[in-house]
Amino acid sequence: MSQAFSFEVEAAGPAGRAGLLTTPHGVVKTPAFMPVATQAVVKLLTPEELKAAGTSILVANAYHLYVRPGAEVVAALGGLHQFMSWPGVILTDSGGFQIHSLAPLRDVDDDGVTFRSHVDGQLLRLTPEVATRIQEQLGADLIMAFDYCTSYPTGRKEAEKAVSLTTAWAARCRETHGSSSQRLLGIVQGALFKDLRERSAAELVAMDFFGYAVGGLSVGEEPAQTAEYAAFTASLLPPNKIRYLMGVGRPKDIAAAVAAGVDLFDCVVPTREGRHGTALVDEGRANVRQSSYRDDKRPLDEGCGCYTCRHFSRAYLRHLFLAGEHLAGRLVSLHNLYYLNQFVARLRDKILRENN
Amino acid sequence: MSQAFSFEVEAAGPAGRAGLLTTPHGVVKTPAFMPVATQAVVKLLTPEELKAAGTSILVANAYHLYVRPGAEVVAALGGLHQFMSWPGVILTDSGGFQIHSLAPLRDVDDDGVTFRSHVDGQLLRLTPEVATRIQEQLGADLIMAFDYCTSYPTGRKEAEKAVSLTTAWAARCRETHGSSSQRLLGIVQGALFKDLRERSAAELVAMDFFGYAVGGLSVGEEPAQTAEYAAFTASLLPPNKIRYLMGVGRPKDIAAAVAAGVDLFDCVVPTREGRHGTALVDEGRANVRQSSYRDDKRPLDEGCGCYTCRHFSRAYLRHLFLAGEHLAGRLVSLHNLYYLNQFVARLRDKILRENN
Repeated sequence: MSQAFSFEVEAAGPAGRAGLLTTPHGVVKTPAFMPVATQAVVKLLTPEELKAAGTSILVANAYHLYVRPGAEVVAALGGLHQFMSWPGVILTDSGGFQIHSLAPLRDVDDDGVTFRSHVDGQLLRLTPEVATRIQEQLGADLIMAFDYCTSYPTGRKEAEKAVSLTTAWAARCRETHGSSSQRLLGIVQGALFKDLRERSAAELVAMDFFGYAVGGLSVGEEPAQTAEYAAFTASLLPPNKIRYLMGVGRPKDIAAAVAAGVDLFDCVVPTREGRHGTALVDEGRANVRQSSYRDDKRPLDEGCGCYTCRHFSRAYLRHLFLAGEHLAGRLVSLHNLYYLNQFVARLRDKILRENN
Repeated sequence: MSQAFSFEVEAAGPAGRAGLLTTPHGVVKTPAFMPVATQAVVKLLTPEELKAAGTSILVANAYHLYVRPGAEVVAALGGLHQFMSWPGVILTDSGGFQIHSLAPLRDVDDDGVTFRSHVDGQLLRLTPEVATRIQEQLGADLIMAFDYCTSYPTGRKEAEKAVSLTTAWAARCRETHGSSSQRLLGIVQGALFKDLRERSAAELVAMDFFGYAVGGLSVGEEPAQTAEYAAFTASLLPPNKIRYLMGVGRPKDIAAAVAAGVDLFDCVVPTREGRHGTALVDEGRANVRQSSYRDDKRPLDEGCGCYTCRHFSRAYLRHLFLAGEHLAGRLVSLHNLYYLNQFVARLRDKILRENN
């Protein structure tokens, strides 16, 4: 199985890089947007719809699935691919970010994190070893090292602690990880301190991971800062390894990060906004409830080839939202994913065109 | 267009009748279950999914669509078929039942009903003429006379009033209705008084409608009473006209009504129960949240060919419900519709087999 994984850069230039990520569950053309299937489901959508929208890789969450239904339940059912009936590529986040953002009463020590489940308040503990074993049970193709994530703003002392713990924990994840059907990625921390980002990247690169994520961004800082620190961090990473910017999903931010040499992105925004009635269109974002849509026969985005735009008018979608019908959020989520996948595919085409 | 509509009984016997309802939007094999698309959507489902589940005809609601988005909006967008992107057959209920069940402060006089919108409290008025014109604007294939529906229990005086008003209003709907691309059905009232049901049926049959509905049942009485009065009412109707029992959708109740010679049924139950986690299975009904499903790899119904059962385990569906994911309700609604359509198709096959 070892040779089933590879990452190859096909072309690179000022607009970014185009690559091929090969896994046992298929090849991902990068740059690629990964929709978020936190609880083993991209909200409201089926695997067939994801595929039709152009998705080849998605992100599930080890913390959430550990809390419910339990990693051993998913394992007993054949692993995450079979559980959620998704034949494509899956990446699981380790849970570091979710504990950081969701769990009350967390208690961090050098060995790991003790926290209360956000579902039932049960006292739980994650260590690098446990987080790795959970991800092995879940069975995603790509898994993430257990990291210590910081908020915005973060002082230097807290950022130093994040880097130190993240490095120490990454080494333990590397040591623990034994599955040949998965590959492990390290996560660079360091908040908005460039020297700490340098230190974090150097320490992780020395461990030779399959790929590297840029963590600790998209946590509240300005988009310009996200872009700046993502580009800076990407420049520290080996050119032959895949790079993943966590938590970024707006077209403009993706374009900036692609230009900086990032390959993978994930974000809840396109589906969350879709459920709440905001559609991605060429002009930016459109509120589907707007009164001018009342008798507008046109699709959300003229020229869009998604199922929603091929079948339904703005007027109908507006009606569904006003009537409180969940089909509305489903249809606009689908459009947004299709739109974003097309957007990223065009970035890729441009890179291939300009550098071949 | 006149010849585009017909109803032909192919076979009839003790198990009921099998027929073909022909309309400009396709042929419906009867008996047929009609899912409810109150607000121009069968909750959570797309037209493609309805078709794949075996649906050929659905029921939308004139009252709801009159209140929101407005019949003139739907008309300007090309009518209900185009608005909701459903190429199959549509029947609209006139709104009599909804005013009866939803609207506060209704005031009934001989001419019509004044009531407050359940959406925004606006004072509205429906008469037989207005209800017919709304349904013409919506553009369904089959439309219903504006009737006066009763609750359970209903005294004789109220039931007599319902029959008198329903007959008088049916005559005015008949007079008003001018569209050749639609057919109008009368609705028999009379609560649980057989002589009043006889009178109502005789008065409506004398007006020669395209078909007849059995109204005023499924309003709270016992299932055995529903079956008894549905059968009694069906026996009063001309054998060459289509018969529609309003508000019935449980397999057992449908089987009883089919045996009594009813052709069409509608009910929110399969989709409402689907959203709430109850699945139709051969053993009856199953609670998808049950703990025994925790690691059950089997589909909801072994041997079922629906999309849900072909792709997802009981364990996954249970997980989605416990996680509050709306995909759960979508998938179980789909299964329930498929299940019910298959159930009715088997009743039809049996009738054809036994009477040819």
